Amino acid sequence: MTKRKKIGILTSGGDCAGLNAVVRAVTRCAIKVYGWEVWGICKATHGLMSHPPEAIQLSVKQVDPYLTMGGTFLGTTNKGDPFAFPMIDGSFVDRSHRIIEGYHKLGLDALIGIGGDGSLAILRKLAQQGGINLVGIPKTIDNDVGVTERSIGFDTAVNIATEAIDRLHFTAASHSRVMIVEVMGRDAGHIALNAGIAGGANIILIPEIPYNLENICNYIKERQARGRDYSIAVVSEAVCTDTGELLEQGHFADCRLGGIGQYLSEKITAISDAETRVTVLGHTQRGGISSPLDRILASAFGVAAVELIAEEKYDRMVTWQERSVKSVPITEAIKDYRTVDPHGTLIKTARGLNICLGD
Amino acid sequence: MTKRKKIGILTSGGDCAGLNAVVRAVTRCAIKVYGWEVWGICKATHGLMSHPPEAIQLSVKQVDPYLTMGGTFLGTTNKGDPFAFPMIDGSFVDRSHRIIEGYHKLGLDALIGIGGDGSLAILRKLAQQGGINLVGIPKTIDNDVGVTERSIGFDTAVNIATEAIDRLHFTAASHSRVMIVEVMGRDAGHIALNAGIAGGANIILIPEIPYNLENICNYIKERQARGRDYSIAVVSEAVCTDTGELLEQGHFADCRLGGIGQYLSEKITAISDAETRVTVLGHTQRGGISSPLDRILASAFGVAAVELIAEEKYDRMVTWQERSVKSVPITEAIKDYRTVDPHGTLIKTARGLNICLGD
Amino acid sequence: MTKRKKIGILTSGGDCAGLNAVVRAVTRCAIKVYGWEVWGICKATHGLMSHPPEAIQLSVKQVDPYLTMGGTFLGTTNKGDPFAFPMIDGSFVDRSHRIIEGYHKLGLDALIGIGGDGSLAILRKLAQQGGINLVGIPKTIDNDVGVTERSIGFDTAVNIATEAIDRLHFTAASHSRVMIVEVMGRDAGHIALNAGIAGGANIILIPEIPYNLENICNYIKERQARGRDYSIAVVSEAVCTDTGELLEQGHFADCRLGGIGQYLSEKITAISDAETRVTVLGHTQRGGISSPLDRILASAFGVAAVELIAEEKYDRMVTWQERSVKSVPITEAIKDYRTVDPHGTLIKTARGLNICLGD
Amino acid sequence: MTKRKKIGILTSGGDCAGLNAVVRAVTRCAIKVYGWEVWGICKATHGLMSHPPEAIQLSVKQVDPYLTMGGTFLGTTNKGDPFAFPMIDGSFVDRSHRIIEGYHKLGLDALIGIGGDGSLAILRKLAQQGGINLVGIPKTIDNDVGVTERSIGFDTAVNIATEAIDRLHFTAASHSRVMIVEVMGRDAGHIALNAGIAGGANIILIPEIPYNLENICNYIKERQARGRDYSIAVVSEAVCTDTGELLEQGHFADCRLGGIGQYLSEKITAISDAETRVTVLGHTQRGGISSPLDRILASAFGVAAVELIAEEKYDRMVTWQERSVKSVPITEAIKDYRTVDPHGTLIKTARGLNICLGD
Repeated sequence: MTKRKKIGILTSGGDCAGLNAVVRAVTRCAIKVYGWEVWGICKATHGLMSHPPEAIQLSVKQVDPYLTMGGTFLGTTNKGDPFAFPMIDGSFVDRSHRIIEGYHKLGLDALIGIGGDGSLAILRKLAQQGGINLVGIPKTIDNDVGVTERSIGFDTAVNIATEAIDRLHFTAASHSRVMIVEVMGRDAGHIALNAGIAGGANIILIPEIPYNLENICNYIKERQARGRDYSIAVVSEAVCTDTGELLEQGHFADCRLGGIGQYLSEKITAISDAETRVTVLGHTQRGGISSPLDRILASAFGVAAVELIAEEKYDRMVTWQERSVKSVPITEAIKDYRTVDPHGTLIKTARGLNICLGD
Repeated sequence: MTKRKKIGILTSGGDCAGLNAVVRAVTRCAIKVYGWEVWGICKATHGLMSHPPEAIQLSVKQVDPYLTMGGTFLGTTNKGDPFAFPMIDGSFVDRSHRIIEGYHKLGLDALIGIGGDGSLAILRKLAQQGGINLVGIPKTIDNDVGVTERSIGFDTAVNIATEAIDRLHFTAASHSRVMIVEVMGRDAGHIALNAGIAGGANIILIPEIPYNLENICNYIKERQARGRDYSIAVVSEAVCTDTGELLEQGHFADCRLGGIGQYLSEKITAISDAETRVTVLGHTQRGGISSPLDRILASAFGVAAVELIAEEKYDRMVTWQERSVKSVPITEAIKDYRTVDPHGTLIKTARGLNICLGD
Repeated sequence: MTKRKKIGILTSGGDCAGLNAVVRAVTRCAIKVYGWEVWGICKATHGLMSHPPEAIQLSVKQVDPYLTMGGTFLGTTNKGDPFAFPMIDGSFVDRSHRIIEGYHKLGLDALIGIGGDGSLAILRKLAQQGGINLVGIPKTIDNDVGVTERSIGFDTAVNIATEAIDRLHFTAASHSRVMIVEVMGRDAGHIALNAGIAGGANIILIPEIPYNLENICNYIKERQARGRDYSIAVVSEAVCTDTGELLEQGHFADCRLGGIGQYLSEKITAISDAETRVTVLGHTQRGGISSPLDRILASAFGVAAVELIAEEKYDRMVTWQERSVKSVPITEAIKDYRTVDPHGTLIKTARGLNICLGD
Repeated sequence: MTKRKKIGILTSGGDCAGLNAVVRAVTRCAIKVYGWEVWGICKATHGLMSHPPEAIQLSVKQVDPYLTMGGTFLGTTNKGDPFAFPMIDGSFVDRSHRIIEGYHKLGLDALIGIGGDGSLAILRKLAQQGGINLVGIPKTIDNDVGVTERSIGFDTAVNIATEAIDRLHFTAASHSRVMIVEVMGRDAGHIALNAGIAGGANIILIPEIPYNLENICNYIKERQARGRDYSIAVVSEAVCTDTGELLEQGHFADCRLGGIGQYLSEKITAISDAETRVTVLGHTQRGGISSPLDRILASAFGVAAVELIAEEKYDRMVTWQERSVKSVPITEAIKDYRTVDPHGTLIKTARGLNICLGD
């Protein structure tokens, strides 16, 4: 069909469910259908920076058991822009040429990069600069990559957050409390909005819609007045305080403690006299067993990426659109990330369900 | 906003996950946003045939706990075309006028009907004939309603089938067996195809792709030759025997026993000498706790249906297209049901993964 | 069999999975087998303090759907010792007589109290003082009630904590991190120990075994030296800092933030240079859907409690011992709560698995 | 502590959840705590029959990922008594000496055998005859091994069966049907009884309690008369027809089709006019991800078995009794298998809940 190729695959940025399923699909398709060679590159672009490059040749037998498992057995990292790589002494150096060298040293014909918009932008810059034949696959629990309707990892993250909300209803009702659930979502509120609707939350706060603390407390009081003595509030970690501050802990230290959930808990207790409790799901949202939908998406993306390479169509990212896999130029996908549309279907749905969005 | 309306809602055909979530969303939106009155009609159109009509006025408090629960608390039935309703003596009578009477007796301004393509066709015929202001919502674990990318109940069914396949891998490998999983899917192989890909099945048989028993046995033997001494086969209940027969048990008696799974088990054992075991998931696929995605879809559809009524746009069905809720004339949605496209993305994915489709 | 009785049931203290299943079992057995009347008392002893007592007569139809659901539909509270009840002005009054009055005003022949050791001690004091025919049922996610091998709610809590640990393995390994999971457990480390073993944790810290931070960091470094570049640490919320302080947030405010998990995270990062992340499961551990084992235990306890009443054996608590339900005097059960035995089977198991207990 | 040993471990009989967790615990403890060598024997005693013996040396790194996974990565078989091993020509030969030879050829100091009562009896006979230092660990989804309160695999099987029953409630209620769930259980009804109670079944049939079809139909009709128009019946595969026949399919072919569930479905439909549906869970009950309790039990058993070997206490089986691991002579454990006690706690519980047991 095509000449025998040697391809590489790497996972970049924060891990999520479905990454392993992509690596499996790519490996199966490249080996079984095309008879190619597949190399898994370790720890994102770091594996290409090493001398010799840190990479392992993949077999079908080796990748098959990873279909269901979250995380990435290749390892990943979200530290260090290769164009300004942080050194121990605090300075920054350009490591991009070492990555490009690594690619060519491995003798790769093409590279499949799985990443969010940030990672894909960096990979594309490397590819343009160094003659790397790149195909991108979108992944992010935040679902904010452009063009594609779904990115890998989002469905599993929503499932885990929803399951937590489901559990909190019972204990919240038993003790007449306001339960605050802080969920992931760096720049977009998709997880909070989806899990909040699915879980029957009463209040959903996302960075795209500014909130007013008083509205929230009034909503809680109004519920109490109607005899509903408990409430569930879902808040995206990227939501700011009502004074416009993004809590450092939530954002930089990534430790998920003392973040916006805790802040709101104190504020709501102070204003409304409701008893509050906070749950911080943290990294459990990155998933254990991938959801079936994430596995299907990952499998379809993996096969499609191999086919793009077979057709030598590079500098493209695969997408899910109208129940089909398609592809677009990477530049088109990353030109802006997709936040929640304040006039879109799910915001309309939330308002139709009388969910308080804080505005 | 609009004049105060009195609307009815019914669930029709086989039950599935997400039905209750639609009823909840409709009730919340109609009452909280529009101040309307909502009546739940019992056991599909049967509730309207009764004198007086069997229906209950719904409150938000009453419907809220049903968000997560599978089935339909209104009850449903898939027995009896009202235009040719089966009598005890074996004859058929036209009961359509009684349903139409029931609608008008209840004084309804509009009716939301949740059903698959069959139910929606019947409801539309009733609506056209009797001046019923109908809005349709697509549901079916088979995902074969036209136009919409997703119908309510499908995601949950795929999850349950996938979970079963996940479990069978371990025991299949331990005993070197061929495990056959018979899944639902009356006329379309979507559940088998999706769950098979998600679950890492080796063989997937769907009614849209004719199979050859020898291909299947060769595939199993080839795997054995490569040291893979177990296989998982997922088969849609609607797949025929290799002599073209649709097994009666599978289709009419609905009892799921002695169906195509059992048939294949015997054939494969006879030809390939592999030890086989059969699992028949049956009605567990109709779901316990709805998946988050089915709840989101159900909520979005419910709110959108109420909005169509507010705008007095009738004879339409809501759809999910390109990550938004839209709507189309019911006639367009039901003109043909959507089976698996043999050249579509997921078939390509299955072939890319080297899954045996029997052809 | 016995004369017709009127019995009351209440849930007291923190909620957990299985409470509703007890209420259901008691109601079914008392009504179906004995033909008695069952009254559910609202919000623990608070329902008996009210004038008139806040209680609802229970029917089988009403309680049946609650079998699987976590929490308690009767409501509960863990605020306020009735013998020294906190008033708004900061003073304390003895409200015990009002509870006793409430019991007699309802005309109850017996009361089933579901609680942990604290609640059961208070209920027994009330019973002794006021002629209440009390039967106790042990519940607590902490599993620290004496005599009985298992209390209701523990199995579900362990399941939820284990599931979180399962999920964290994948993401920890992907990013080479130390993941710290703070689990519930006020006075006993049973949840941490059980979930830690079940989840394959590398480090388990419980209040019964004092730890040394250096041991933990050495253990982490040793793992790193052997090429295992990630670790999972499970810590009970009741574990103190290495300076012997019980963190206020963890204990009094119950907000689960800035607790021992966060403290350890900072210490471990400072000493070992490992990248850490913290997850605080909080109230999700109190459960959504009860585990089958908790439902079985709850059903067996509920039926046995009714039988004790039928035999007019009061002042006793039902227990699970040697795969049977038995009963003991309440005094015996509450004389001391059961913490983790530092020489018991599961500590031996943890040491045998080379899990670091910090000592 | 003791001299350095070389030990073997094998899994025998039908697979179940927790087997891999035992192998992991044994390997970790033997290597990390004692510094021994551990060999995993493939496909039960078959691995010892081969020349050379089919076995692999196990490392901690290799076994760790298997903690959560069902099945057994060592493989197993339930075919062929080595004292009368079936040959292709239909004759039987004694293969016991080859197994004994295999043990000695591997140079093992001791053998850990994980099995049900049948497997343990055969292993003990081999051990007695051939000087094998044997320690037994009880496993069986049926929970019928003597002395021990719990065997590995049971809790997971009950969880899976209960989950199926939970799901069927919703669809049964929606369509007013009688749902029959056939669960595993060769000689004992523990799975059916436990899952039936946990799942809120209305009817539970187990081999230990003879049933009368009319009682069952009367119970169903009585429920219908009280307005409960659906029922859930759980039946153990080992239950006979009302004419005393054990259905061949259920027992010998193991194919789980046309078994007792299907038989009862037809009988109940004929007598009661109820619409019935059958689900046959089959091998899904052998489990995917092990339950936390099974993993804890497996871990405790594995460590305890290694300690018995360290103390050179052979011919014993580890047990779970009164929340501790103990051990007994294997002979004591296998002298009779433990069926459901018709006067025991759970039967009393079932009757107390007004569950129909058919008698």
